[in-house]
Amino acid sequence: MSKQSALTRDEVEVWRAFYSMRRHLDRALDRQLQDDSSISTSEYEILLTLHNVPEHRLRLKELAGIVGWEKSRVSHQVTRMEKRGLLRRVECDTDARGSWIELTTDGRRATLGAMRGHVDAIRRYFFDVLRGDDGQRLLGLSGRVLDAIGSSSDCEADTDNVAS
Amino acid sequence: MSKQSALTRDEVEVWRAFYSMRRHLDRALDRQLQDDSSISTSEYEILLTLHNVPEHRLRLKELAGIVGWEKSRVSHQVTRMEKRGLLRRVECDTDARGSWIELTTDGRRATLGAMRGHVDAIRRYFFDVLRGDDGQRLLGLSGRVLDAIGSSSDCEADTDNVAS
Repeated sequence: MSKQSALTRDEVEVWRAFYSMRRHLDRALDRQLQDDSSISTSEYEILLTLHNVPEHRLRLKELAGIVGWEKSRVSHQVTRMEKRGLLRRVECDTDARGSWIELTTDGRRATLGAMRGHVDAIRRYFFDVLRGDDGQRLLGLSGRVLDAIGSSSDCEADTDNVAS
Repeated sequence: MSKQSALTRDEVEVWRAFYSMRRHLDRALDRQLQDDSSISTSEYEILLTLHNVPEHRLRLKELAGIVGWEKSRVSHQVTRMEKRGLLRRVECDTDARGSWIELTTDGRRATLGAMRGHVDAIRRYFFDVLRGDDGQRLLGLSGRVLDAIGSSSDCEADTDNVAS
């Protein structure tokens, strides 16, 4: 049985290359954000998510749903970003759903400032090296992987949570 | 200038799908390891790296080089895994390079126990949904992304650090 599930030599080679690429791409994009804009990938995800919604504000629960994190992790992240002046919590006494998480003017400025450099990096590291229909092939493959994982139901939200 | 670097609609679609796939794949594989073998992806990376080298032992610096982490992060991880009995530090007074990090018998057993389920998950979530020459295309693309990032010099080591 062990033999049946083992990967072939070619598969090991593909998996290792793909794994290494994913790790290095994440690290390179994180480093670019840190170096150019002094924000982490996690902070950028939160900023961009709020930037992309009307009035630049969401409930904690909605925000957690979109970025795909546990509520407690979002809450800690929001507290840190609040201290940096990038976000604010706006209380709403008449609404049981709790406070809004809202982008501040500084937060909007930070998002816009970070976006250009980040998109440049995504182009340089990724889109500039695609060949032929690589992009469309990857789009199809990504959908099939997501289906296989069975997470397609919560992917919709997650797809809002990216670079541009 | 901002316009020049912006991504096209198609590029945004590809990037979002690829981003979402990477996140969900990481999470699904991490969950599988936790559920089936009670180890984290980080622990598995350390275990597998040591499993794949002669005598199942490395210096901390070598181990850090292969997994591609900061030495301090590896050291903390090793301490936690030592407490669980998966690894041991073997001191060597006559060698200035410090102690070896060595897989214990329990560590070897845990690695072998985790591998089969993990490889099954990689097959199910990834290889089973590849079509045509998807694998070879991804292999080429991964190499070009790594070259673009300019990290090809330290990728060699990193490629040892994967699922099978």
